[in-house]
Amino acid sequence: MKFERTYTLKEIAEFLNSPFQGDENLKITGINEIHKIEPGEIVFVDHPKYYKKALESAADVILIDQDVEVPAGKGIIVCAAPFDAFNKITRHFSPDKPWTHPTGDHFEIGENNSIYPNVTIGHHVKIGNNCVIHAGAVICDHTIIKDNVIIGPNSVIGHYAFYYKKKPDGFNRMHTCGRTILEDNVEIGALSTIDRGVTGDTIIGKGTKIDNQVHVGHDTVIGENCLFAANVGIAGCVVIKNNVTLWGQVGVVSDVTIHSNVTVLGQSGVGMDLEEGKSYFGSPCGESRVKMKELAAFKRLPGIIENL
Amino acid sequence: MKFERTYTLKEIAEFLNSPFQGDENLKITGINEIHKIEPGEIVFVDHPKYYKKALESAADVILIDQDVEVPAGKGIIVCAAPFDAFNKITRHFSPDKPWTHPTGDHFEIGENNSIYPNVTIGHHVKIGNNCVIHAGAVICDHTIIKDNVIIGPNSVIGHYAFYYKKKPDGFNRMHTCGRTILEDNVEIGALSTIDRGVTGDTIIGKGTKIDNQVHVGHDTVIGENCLFAANVGIAGCVVIKNNVTLWGQVGVVSDVTIHSNVTVLGQSGVGMDLEEGKSYFGSPCGESRVKMKELAAFKRLPGIIENL
Amino acid sequence: MKFERTYTLKEIAEFLNSPFQGDENLKITGINEIHKIEPGEIVFVDHPKYYKKALESAADVILIDQDVEVPAGKGIIVCAAPFDAFNKITRHFSPDKPWTHPTGDHFEIGENNSIYPNVTIGHHVKIGNNCVIHAGAVICDHTIIKDNVIIGPNSVIGHYAFYYKKKPDGFNRMHTCGRTILEDNVEIGALSTIDRGVTGDTIIGKGTKIDNQVHVGHDTVIGENCLFAANVGIAGCVVIKNNVTLWGQVGVVSDVTIHSNVTVLGQSGVGMDLEEGKSYFGSPCGESRVKMKELAAFKRLPGIIENL
Repeated sequence: MKFERTYTLKEIAEFLNSPFQGDENLKITGINEIHKIEPGEIVFVDHPKYYKKALESAADVILIDQDVEVPAGKGIIVCAAPFDAFNKITRHFSPDKPWTHPTGDHFEIGENNSIYPNVTIGHHVKIGNNCVIHAGAVICDHTIIKDNVIIGPNSVIGHYAFYYKKKPDGFNRMHTCGRTILEDNVEIGALSTIDRGVTGDTIIGKGTKIDNQVHVGHDTVIGENCLFAANVGIAGCVVIKNNVTLWGQVGVVSDVTIHSNVTVLGQSGVGMDLEEGKSYFGSPCGESRVKMKELAAFKRLPGIIENL
Repeated sequence: MKFERTYTLKEIAEFLNSPFQGDENLKITGINEIHKIEPGEIVFVDHPKYYKKALESAADVILIDQDVEVPAGKGIIVCAAPFDAFNKITRHFSPDKPWTHPTGDHFEIGENNSIYPNVTIGHHVKIGNNCVIHAGAVICDHTIIKDNVIIGPNSVIGHYAFYYKKKPDGFNRMHTCGRTILEDNVEIGALSTIDRGVTGDTIIGKGTKIDNQVHVGHDTVIGENCLFAANVGIAGCVVIKNNVTLWGQVGVVSDVTIHSNVTVLGQSGVGMDLEEGKSYFGSPCGESRVKMKELAAFKRLPGIIENL
Repeated sequence: MKFERTYTLKEIAEFLNSPFQGDENLKITGINEIHKIEPGEIVFVDHPKYYKKALESAADVILIDQDVEVPAGKGIIVCAAPFDAFNKITRHFSPDKPWTHPTGDHFEIGENNSIYPNVTIGHHVKIGNNCVIHAGAVICDHTIIKDNVIIGPNSVIGHYAFYYKKKPDGFNRMHTCGRTILEDNVEIGALSTIDRGVTGDTIIGKGTKIDNQVHVGHDTVIGENCLFAANVGIAGCVVIKNNVTLWGQVGVVSDVTIHSNVTVLGQSGVGMDLEEGKSYFGSPCGESRVKMKELAAFKRLPGIIENL
């Protein structure tokens, strides 16, 4: 998430009432989660296991829970609960504002669109040209819909990320303030959900077609001309390249990459990166030709055991 | 379900036009399904296999399809079709009443709530304080929402139980007249369904967080601080204790108990009770460490068969 | 799809600006996809692999991408892109017309129905008697709902088929112009989707009960008194006969037949025709008694390998 203007390290530290190290005039342009961090931005880290990753990331300012050596040219803000400090910043600069009308503030829309009845549109939504938004769809804050996009009935685009931090008194939700972007010619079926980026963008690439009852998690980035059949579930922070086909009820765990031209057969579970051009099957999935051999062996197993 | 006043055994038997045994002044306070039955209530049984369970349950009155010895202090009502008699009572005392306005009758709501556009709220709904009901959500009859609850766009809270009795002319639906209770700090994602108790309560415990496209069946009782990822499906009459994590696309059959601090990995199928603190995987699931060994052996199987 | 009047082969060929062979006065009554084709109708074929099937089908006119010998009494229209020609005809004779009101044109409704708030109804929808359409449901164009039907909150009946043709510049959607028919006593839960036939009919048979979050694809025909539990996903062009039970999260691939009185256990994947009266389990599924033996053997596998 980019701020509307540039802030200094000192300004943000004062906003958090926390001590800082580094040049007080260090310029801060935004805030992002570690997966999406860009130069000029703030990131947070609250476990020594991830200190190195955060300090060596593109972030210029790190919210951290103990004093550490500051990388050259960067700043740190030391606070007991970096997750909470991060949330305090995002909530301040991008607060949730309830929708009181079926169409929110700062709505921009192009030409030749069909918005069906009972559609609800949040704040800061942009819709291009020649789009169809079917009945009952909900388009949440900060959704960007390009041209020739079709969204099916009762689908939900851009709802909160499912991202919580365990605290002694229960789960604390990470405030969602990123965007959801549907590129040209994207089609989404009925009753599908595309979650909004936490601080970055969830992106559905040009020409990708998604069936009914599909779920795509926050910050997942999907390429061009993919085809996802019904009941597919894709977690957050996944990368899917171009021309990928996922058949019905496939599940994909977070933080994996599916390379271009991959096909995943129905009901498979993807728990690792998948290589370009291959076909996969099984839960957990492996290459289809290997899995088919295993399944054939499996069928012979009771007879073999009897013979032993 | 509790009646609005106390009835006598004789009154209910007359309402059903059926003979009864037991003290005609026996007090009846409500009616419930066998899983939820409490003292003072009516239960039904229509198969000799379950007679003992029903007659020895907490029920004070049993609707039964043949004359049997009446347990001391209890009553029976003998009717050819106890299921139909049960439905006749629940339909009479808690009839469905169509909603003609976006907000039903007997709606109680606290302070500082955000109800987004295109939300529909049924009869006898209570909402506490500081809740957010996102666009398009449907809150059905007899839903109780406590404080700080968030319900995602187009989710449906409190729809009918999926509970049918096979009859010669097709399936007869059990009339739904229980409640749905979401405790403090519960969060439900977009496009999720939490079904209403048949005659008892479906309960989502304090602090439990549920992702998008999750289904929870009727009369299921879920504890505190659980985390259910997207596309999880939980049948009716399940008990899930505290701090249980279900990853994406997990399925749980009816009538099982998942004890506290259990983790079930993605796409697993739960068909039995799960023990406290353990991790499970597979369909049907077993302990993860056992299943991982089986999977490793499975991969070696084609080679082993070749060698034999 | 039937046309509103009969056309001649010459008229349709001129509409497509394409050469034809056969009697120019050959009567054309409609257009259909190969799975649903009836005498008097147009079908398309664009791959030599399927020429024979199309030419020998019930179709009287075949849109085809090269000149072939014309079967006696039939006609062909030769065009470079038969898929596009087919779409051009269906789009012309059955164009999508945006809905600007919550109830579309040509809406016919019987007596004693309850239509809850925030329901949206498209064009050419017929509803019989004694139906309940719960809040937020979307009933799309050309849906026929018979008597005593219940549709759950936010369900979507009759959305587009998920049917695309790969082209060099991305996927082209097959225009949907068939119907969706829910027979007497059908009940659909919350957040379920029943897709519309492409040019034919998607049919849910009399007395069939469908739970929440179930998906049924285009042109699938389901018999009487079936029971589908939550999260079931059924692809397009499936045939399911009578009294079939699918437990939770079952998936069914396209173009298979499940015969009467079959039960498929939870999370199974159906990839082939299933025989009458049998029980199936597994992904891919097999007969339950066989699969249970395989699973028992599977559990012994690590020990057996250790012993070898």
